[in-house]
Amino acid sequence: MTNFYQADYTKPDGRRLTLYGLTPLEVTSEIPSPSAEPVDARPVMRWHPLRGEWVMYAAHRLGRTFLPPPEYNPLAPTSDPAHPTELPRGNYDIAVFENRFPSLKLEAPEPPEGPANTRAGVGMCEVVVFSQNAQGRLSDLSDEQMSLLLAVWADRTTRATGGTIQSVLCFENRGVEVGVTLHHPHGQIYAYDHIPPVQQTMLDQARRHHAETGRAWLQDFVQAEREAGSNIVLDGGAALSIVPPFARYTYETWIVPERPVSLLSELSAHERLTFGRVLKDALLRLDALFGVRMPYLLTVHQAPLNAPSTHFPLHIELYPYLRAAGRMKYLAGTEQGAGEFANDKFPEVAAEELRAVQV
Amino acid sequence: MTNFYQADYTKPDGRRLTLYGLTPLEVTSEIPSPSAEPVDARPVMRWHPLRGEWVMYAAHRLGRTFLPPPEYNPLAPTSDPAHPTELPRGNYDIAVFENRFPSLKLEAPEPPEGPANTRAGVGMCEVVVFSQNAQGRLSDLSDEQMSLLLAVWADRTTRATGGTIQSVLCFENRGVEVGVTLHHPHGQIYAYDHIPPVQQTMLDQARRHHAETGRAWLQDFVQAEREAGSNIVLDGGAALSIVPPFARYTYETWIVPERPVSLLSELSAHERLTFGRVLKDALLRLDALFGVRMPYLLTVHQAPLNAPSTHFPLHIELYPYLRAAGRMKYLAGTEQGAGEFANDKFPEVAAEELRAVQV
Repeated sequence: MTNFYQADYTKPDGRRLTLYGLTPLEVTSEIPSPSAEPVDARPVMRWHPLRGEWVMYAAHRLGRTFLPPPEYNPLAPTSDPAHPTELPRGNYDIAVFENRFPSLKLEAPEPPEGPANTRAGVGMCEVVVFSQNAQGRLSDLSDEQMSLLLAVWADRTTRATGGTIQSVLCFENRGVEVGVTLHHPHGQIYAYDHIPPVQQTMLDQARRHHAETGRAWLQDFVQAEREAGSNIVLDGGAALSIVPPFARYTYETWIVPERPVSLLSELSAHERLTFGRVLKDALLRLDALFGVRMPYLLTVHQAPLNAPSTHFPLHIELYPYLRAAGRMKYLAGTEQGAGEFANDKFPEVAAEELRAVQV
Repeated sequence: MTNFYQADYTKPDGRRLTLYGLTPLEVTSEIPSPSAEPVDARPVMRWHPLRGEWVMYAAHRLGRTFLPPPEYNPLAPTSDPAHPTELPRGNYDIAVFENRFPSLKLEAPEPPEGPANTRAGVGMCEVVVFSQNAQGRLSDLSDEQMSLLLAVWADRTTRATGGTIQSVLCFENRGVEVGVTLHHPHGQIYAYDHIPPVQQTMLDQARRHHAETGRAWLQDFVQAEREAGSNIVLDGGAALSIVPPFARYTYETWIVPERPVSLLSELSAHERLTFGRVLKDALLRLDALFGVRMPYLLTVHQAPLNAPSTHFPLHIELYPYLRAAGRMKYLAGTEQGAGEFANDKFPEVAAEELRAVQV
């Protein structure tokens, strides 16, 4: 289904690295790591008895002593062997490696003791470097590179399938406004040994819809939005961008495939190319909307693994953090204390503004 | 049970106002409103089909044209009749009034049309002004004023009971870091015509605990924490502050009553006084921790109304937004995309730091 190159490596500290490329891979330096010394990560999970969810503790994360030179970029190819980064020099487009300070780890040791419902923080945390261009944005990728990124996210999900991992969340968090200090375009992957609350709820809701109507939720959603028209930002045929009529963030944009599937790996090469184009278009519109790099969270929602979940609607959710020029949305009392969002603008008005943006 | 004074008023634009005081109330100016013209609020709710929650739309909120003089403080008593505020001059400690730009409204009109699962945004949004001291903090209130505030929150909840309101959330969001531009100490109340997801989950979890053990969750929690000792910040007898062993925020602190009750109104005058003292102590510790005014969210969790929910654990949750000096916690991929928090520090370590703070 895909036409790209990939190769696996092991870093000096034992972590796994995969390089992906549209053209044949070439590595022209040692495979580096900021330190050859493995980090003694002992992530732990504890059960929140009133919210009914796991909380992850990664006490090794605060201990990082890290005083690199100011221009040091751990996600750039290593240029000075005295200050090794995470990546080698060579020809590749996208790189994925295990997070050096993970919140979850496949081989997490059993915690020695602790309160009830404490257990090892089993899972995976990976870093996905989108490009070798440190100044670029995700939306600066070419159509083919965007399609490759979707294939990489699919590949990481497929690799995680069949073992202890039950759910994979690929995401990008962008913006100094939300604490992202590393500007090199990159995302992360969290892989859980259980189904987290958001994925469980989505699965339950989609199953309920199927049981009641006999149809996939995504299919009905796309059909209803095409009939209404008001909330579609771009209809690319095999994929669409939509400000859903129930948007929680003012300019929240979803990228959905026309054909209801549950996993990125189910998209054909053509569908993936279109999906990537529509995603790129949505990102460009968000940056053009107020003429600033929009801080945002991008999350890829895929079906839980290892369970019959064919009705889960594959989609990407983009949460832009600006609700107006210069005005951030913060999650306050109702969002955090009750779990319900307040939004100042109707989604169809936001969609109209996004359609009017020149990209 | 309570020993305080209260009186109800109607503002020029029709909104309700209640003044509360420890000493007899006196009002020495007209009851004001920033404008005598009622705001045409038409809040709407829409159902999020994949998250299974309501989203509130208050399109009138962005339309506010508000160009007051720079020193204008709408929560201070009116000093210049040419620029009326929300409150009169006089003798009172705490004031509660309907939000001029509400996300929910008891008389919300039926929306004319819209996507499926659109309905009127029925509920209440109130503003609670903690003090006439514009420069103060919640923790600057005296013990008696803190106890009065708890009585006010209880009174607002009791008043909302028996009608369409099903759940009341009292909260304070504080800090320029999280977008709060109005520094006069104040909180808000959201009252919902349904049980929001967080309250529903807490109720379900507490009921499950009772069904399995025959005991109230809060009772077992307090007993276990007293036995362990490690996570208690202050044990005031009738109330305790605890960094729960499953804290999601680094210095997250809960205020719990020793006696398991479901509503603030169930606390005796003595219990309320102790609860207020422990809350005040917790707030002072958070400000002293890094020597800055800690940005935080405070939420009061009470049982849903009009339903048998005696096992719901009344408590206050304080979410301090700094996870270290100068370092904010942001909700990123795992928190928003999966619903699970990552925390860099074990709660018992945070509790030890908070105990060591001099207040």
